[in-house]
Amino acid sequence: MSAFSRFTPLVQSLPATIPFVGPEAIERQRGRKIAARIGANESGFGPARSVLRAIEQAAGETWKYADPENHDLKQALAAQLGTAPANIAVGEGIDSLLGQIVRLVVEPGTPVVTSLGAYPTFNYHVAGHGGRLVTTPYVEDREDLEGLLAAAKRENAPLVYFANPDNPMGSWWPADHVIDFANALPETTLLVLDEAYCETAPPEALPSIASLIDKPNVIRTRTFSKAYGLAGARVGYALTTAGTAQSFDKIRNHFGMNRIGVAAAIAALADQDYLNEVTLKIFGARERIASIARDNGIEPLASATNFVAVDCGRDAAYARAIVDRLMSDHGIFIRMPGVAPLNRCIRVSTGPDSELDLLEAALPSVLKSLAAG
Amino acid sequence: MSAFSRFTPLVQSLPATIPFVGPEAIERQRGRKIAARIGANESGFGPARSVLRAIEQAAGETWKYADPENHDLKQALAAQLGTAPANIAVGEGIDSLLGQIVRLVVEPGTPVVTSLGAYPTFNYHVAGHGGRLVTTPYVEDREDLEGLLAAAKRENAPLVYFANPDNPMGSWWPADHVIDFANALPETTLLVLDEAYCETAPPEALPSIASLIDKPNVIRTRTFSKAYGLAGARVGYALTTAGTAQSFDKIRNHFGMNRIGVAAAIAALADQDYLNEVTLKIFGARERIASIARDNGIEPLASATNFVAVDCGRDAAYARAIVDRLMSDHGIFIRMPGVAPLNRCIRVSTGPDSELDLLEAALPSVLKSLAAG
Repeated sequence: MSAFSRFTPLVQSLPATIPFVGPEAIERQRGRKIAARIGANESGFGPARSVLRAIEQAAGETWKYADPENHDLKQALAAQLGTAPANIAVGEGIDSLLGQIVRLVVEPGTPVVTSLGAYPTFNYHVAGHGGRLVTTPYVEDREDLEGLLAAAKRENAPLVYFANPDNPMGSWWPADHVIDFANALPETTLLVLDEAYCETAPPEALPSIASLIDKPNVIRTRTFSKAYGLAGARVGYALTTAGTAQSFDKIRNHFGMNRIGVAAAIAALADQDYLNEVTLKIFGARERIASIARDNGIEPLASATNFVAVDCGRDAAYARAIVDRLMSDHGIFIRMPGVAPLNRCIRVSTGPDSELDLLEAALPSVLKSLAAG
Repeated sequence: MSAFSRFTPLVQSLPATIPFVGPEAIERQRGRKIAARIGANESGFGPARSVLRAIEQAAGETWKYADPENHDLKQALAAQLGTAPANIAVGEGIDSLLGQIVRLVVEPGTPVVTSLGAYPTFNYHVAGHGGRLVTTPYVEDREDLEGLLAAAKRENAPLVYFANPDNPMGSWWPADHVIDFANALPETTLLVLDEAYCETAPPEALPSIASLIDKPNVIRTRTFSKAYGLAGARVGYALTTAGTAQSFDKIRNHFGMNRIGVAAAIAALADQDYLNEVTLKIFGARERIASIARDNGIEPLASATNFVAVDCGRDAAYARAIVDRLMSDHGIFIRMPGVAPLNRCIRVSTGPDSELDLLEAALPSVLKSLAAG
């Protein structure tokens, strides 16, 4: 296949990878429709009815570009969070914001600290800008704050990624530990505190907005993709100082947001009753996934997210076999962590009872077939 | 305002600019609602009814991420264009694709050739990657193919931008000139042939797909934002060799597309009857803008796009005053080119009669007030 011959040396060195294979691609590869879509930490409970109405209303205006300043969404977020619109940057999901943050900080060879087995899409962006990943292992299935701090100092790294609650393990740190960690980092190290799963976390895991908002070297990222049920809408935001927030304006795609997605996000924010309702459903589904796991003799990990990591008690090949058979034999799409020792686990997203029913029905036969095999 | 202290030197050197001020921001600045939105080359005719139905249907699935491979959209595009899905890259509008193309090619100091006064968002991306813009002037309000070729060769530039039809002037070159230009460029120069306005161009202005699809150093960009009436949906695509197309996979935000927008684009492609209908409306509106201009003693330029550049016969200050007064006194949003000598013109987007009625009513008094002033 012939490609243009003069892409940058960095680009020429990159593989054409994809951080995750999407469920639709899995369907095409396996020639089998997905019956339970509980692998991508989406929300099968969907968005609120009020959001669907807002989408319908916004459809008639989809011939217009979205407001590049994202004024109304920033106002709504600021009011809800008790901060100022200037403290907010909006992007096409956290993935896009992570790409922008990496671009703001990373040059070829720049050391970037993360946990071994944490979010692959962050690593993808670091590689894409020629950064050098420095990883520190999880300790007891949690990201290791001391390890991250030590690595950041040792490497004089300008960028550290830390998710709280964590993906893929679902674990979390209490807010005071997170604040201490942020304060202990040098001012020359930018902390990305990824809070994609904040809506389903215990309140004591979340630092107050005020506790970190004045630190130019802390960016908290959040999204409408998880509890709000709007993964397909691609709306994420970053919270930081006004100065750091404005830096996104130097490089972002100003007309990149889709108008219907922004309208959906504003409507979702306005419907906190639905958010409360759906988080209760997510908590219920977490319990149910945990009990399905226990009934099958495998061990669910405590979760502060919209998924549950389940320790299958053996190696990665075993976990992989469970993931594969659930899909091939039952059309049940789940995922698993990519790196040892996390990859002894499978990762099951919460979803409606109808989908967990399928998991409950399928898991015993899958485990049995693997024991026999 | 305090920002993180250790952004890259390139980022620190960049202004927090925005390529265009959006109409919503203009409304907020002026404290006046827009009555006629005919400035951003959107389509006030809107998308097809069949597209609105597709959006409504897709709304229920907006809790799912879009397929990162964009399989169905690529299949539909390939079938319509008579090429292969592998020849297509999909992105969040042409703006996003331009950002990716620049990132694939440009390092600090890289010379990049464009026409003086051509698409500011392309220039924004070049600046954002530290490239050095080399411009060549328009000749008789058209981009100068000979000038672009000479500049590319002289500078040994790896990247040239050329829009056909052109924005902001609406002018165009016949297909054979475009093909000759592409063939005359060194293989080490990548041509971005921006065809955002292809649907409203005379057929003889468009090279066949086959004529350029085998050239790894040509990328044609197209969009659903113009004639298809889906600017807010953020769906664009690039046509090139499979090898060059795959290079986007090295750096793009794989989960960046919004699901409703992709569904809307697929539905729009399927409704070519509507496209035919709406392009006739656009042609009619072009004629009407031209005749409004002539009735007011100013000179419309021939247009192959969904807008008309109108030569106001004096300097940039005069054109600017017309743009400002139309907005301030009448709520009519139009734009104008940013650079001399193009900025003797105003640029009016096509739109429904109701909006052009407002322009027709307002323009005489605006011109009269400026003559008196």
